Amino acid sequence: MQDLSRRRFMKGAAAATLAAPFISTGARAAAPDKKLGVALCGLGSLSTKQIAPALQKTQHCRLAGIVTGSSEKAEEWRKRYDLPKRSVYSYDTMHRMADNDDIDIVYVVTPNALHLEHTVAAAQAGKHVFCEKPLEISVERCQQMIDACKAAERMLGTAYRCRFEPHHQECIRLAREQELGPVRIIEAGFGIDVGRPDQWRLKHALSGGGALMDVGVYALQATRYLTGEEPVLVTATETKTDAVKFKEVDETISWTAQFPSGANAYCTASFKIGGIKNFRANCERGWFELDPAYYYGGIKGSRSDGKPLSFPEVDMFAAQLDDFARCIKERRPTIVPGEEGLQDVRIMSAIYESARTGRAIRI
Amino acid sequence: MQDLSRRRFMKGAAAATLAAPFISTGARAAAPDKKLGVALCGLGSLSTKQIAPALQKTQHCRLAGIVTGSSEKAEEWRKRYDLPKRSVYSYDTMHRMADNDDIDIVYVVTPNALHLEHTVAAAQAGKHVFCEKPLEISVERCQQMIDACKAAERMLGTAYRCRFEPHHQECIRLAREQELGPVRIIEAGFGIDVGRPDQWRLKHALSGGGALMDVGVYALQATRYLTGEEPVLVTATETKTDAVKFKEVDETISWTAQFPSGANAYCTASFKIGGIKNFRANCERGWFELDPAYYYGGIKGSRSDGKPLSFPEVDMFAAQLDDFARCIKERRPTIVPGEEGLQDVRIMSAIYESARTGRAIRI
Repeated sequence: MQDLSRRRFMKGAAAATLAAPFISTGARAAAPDKKLGVALCGLGSLSTKQIAPALQKTQHCRLAGIVTGSSEKAEEWRKRYDLPKRSVYSYDTMHRMADNDDIDIVYVVTPNALHLEHTVAAAQAGKHVFCEKPLEISVERCQQMIDACKAAERMLGTAYRCRFEPHHQECIRLAREQELGPVRIIEAGFGIDVGRPDQWRLKHALSGGGALMDVGVYALQATRYLTGEEPVLVTATETKTDAVKFKEVDETISWTAQFPSGANAYCTASFKIGGIKNFRANCERGWFELDPAYYYGGIKGSRSDGKPLSFPEVDMFAAQLDDFARCIKERRPTIVPGEEGLQDVRIMSAIYESARTGRAIRI
Repeated sequence: MQDLSRRRFMKGAAAATLAAPFISTGARAAAPDKKLGVALCGLGSLSTKQIAPALQKTQHCRLAGIVTGSSEKAEEWRKRYDLPKRSVYSYDTMHRMADNDDIDIVYVVTPNALHLEHTVAAAQAGKHVFCEKPLEISVERCQQMIDACKAAERMLGTAYRCRFEPHHQECIRLAREQELGPVRIIEAGFGIDVGRPDQWRLKHALSGGGALMDVGVYALQATRYLTGEEPVLVTATETKTDAVKFKEVDETISWTAQFPSGANAYCTASFKIGGIKNFRANCERGWFELDPAYYYGGIKGSRSDGKPLSFPEVDMFAAQLDDFARCIKERRPTIVPGEEGLQDVRIMSAIYESARTGRAIRI
């Protein structure tokens, strides 16, 4: 165990909201150039195809361990990435990471409803936690994750990769600086053909919800980081065309949202209809949009005034991990703390409640 | 007065729904090439800039009269369009059209809440009525218009010009023939900077509502003619940033809608933010969209498969009037009967009710 007494405690609501990196990373804090070790917890498609390759491109991180329930995957990954045997864990043994100084961060990439368990295990083992979106399946469980990391004096980050992508960052700048006037009406949607019917995303107990939880969260995030505000009222309708495949979760859901400034959003998420992948921010003197906005690459932007909104491609997974590592090294807050993930879960819960009850939900 | 005994009556719900042109047009029915005379009722900007010029381009109509409350406008229009003095009416004298065989159709272009009065006057004078959108400010008043035209055995049409525009018609074909699969999710929005604060559109008593009634109706129409279905449930939120200008009517309103097939729509309307003017129909195997979709010209279409969605420009006002005249001459139903206008008013009333009460409204 690391020396808890060396850590500074953080006080006050503002600090808590920021989830500032109040924590020394022990000996490693003295070596800012050292790459932080990341253990991937959950070796599904996302870890395999996106995150592990991205870790090869990071400046401040390296793949240092894995947590998996599959001995085959364990062996395959250990060989492929030349990992020491002691850095290969199962979900039952991951608490032993406490003794493994090679691992600084656990990136939780398991099904949504397992994020709490794996975050708590990682935090209690003294590791910082970076967690895939959505943070968890309920506000209460998100709060427990935040509390667990706070108690262990570890940072908790939510994997909102778009926040580290230059097109999105430029759109946030355009919105904040009101280059085209204040943002007034946002249209945002993300729909995918979710694929195989036997995946965990379609099981409510593991996912907590369907299209909204998995892809709608990108559109919801966009409405929040473009307005810089929190929605105060949402309404929603949900529809299904395949009641068998989408028996347990939402196939398609659309929602509207009110923001305190008078901004308004209309949005959709779908597990059935691909090709919806955009946002458009309509401002008082024009608009800007990204389409595609949320894919792993190929982001394209445009503005009503014809000025370019184009940047070189980045690996968003690498960018978000490098930022998280720098936050840890430099003891500054991440822009994607657990509280940010919790807030989206809170709003998504309200959207589901609206669709279920037929009432506008005040947040 | 025309000879009512020569007219055939129409029976049955289906016929009533179609608002079939069951009516002989008297002597003119024997002269199919004769242009039908149109009296413009209300000489505001739309009549001046769009409809009167369009009438010069029609094949089956001609400007044959005017109804205005302004003696200056009366004189100006009479001279400009070489109208006989007897075809110039005020709102108080328009009932005398009954004696004027030069006028076959009255095109009602007055503020929304006056449509009923002017439609009843025109119908009772034996004229067919073509009426600007929205048809009226309540379902009840729309029904009274329909009833008045039915009692007078005259046709009632709603000025949904997009229905006569080839890009929109091609989109309807794409939807019906499911060329890209069934339509599943529609995004549609229309926003304009409404302009001067002293106009009737901002007075609730005259308009019945703001952005939704005036421009949102285009987006709503699109969701209906693209799905070919009626929404069964709507939710909505309304926001304001200028509570003075938009004291009486909605500035910005967004809504969602459920359709029986499982199609879903997310939409917006605004009197504050221009540049929103599109729809996009997301189908099971791709999408098609128009943007701009609702302007008087310059309609542009695109499809996910890259195939062209482009047609020569037409004058939509001329096209809709020619169609209405042909319907009268050929004794066939219009695709934009009063019932179509009423249905949109019914749904818009539900959208307003949802925004006001915070409840999803079942239609």
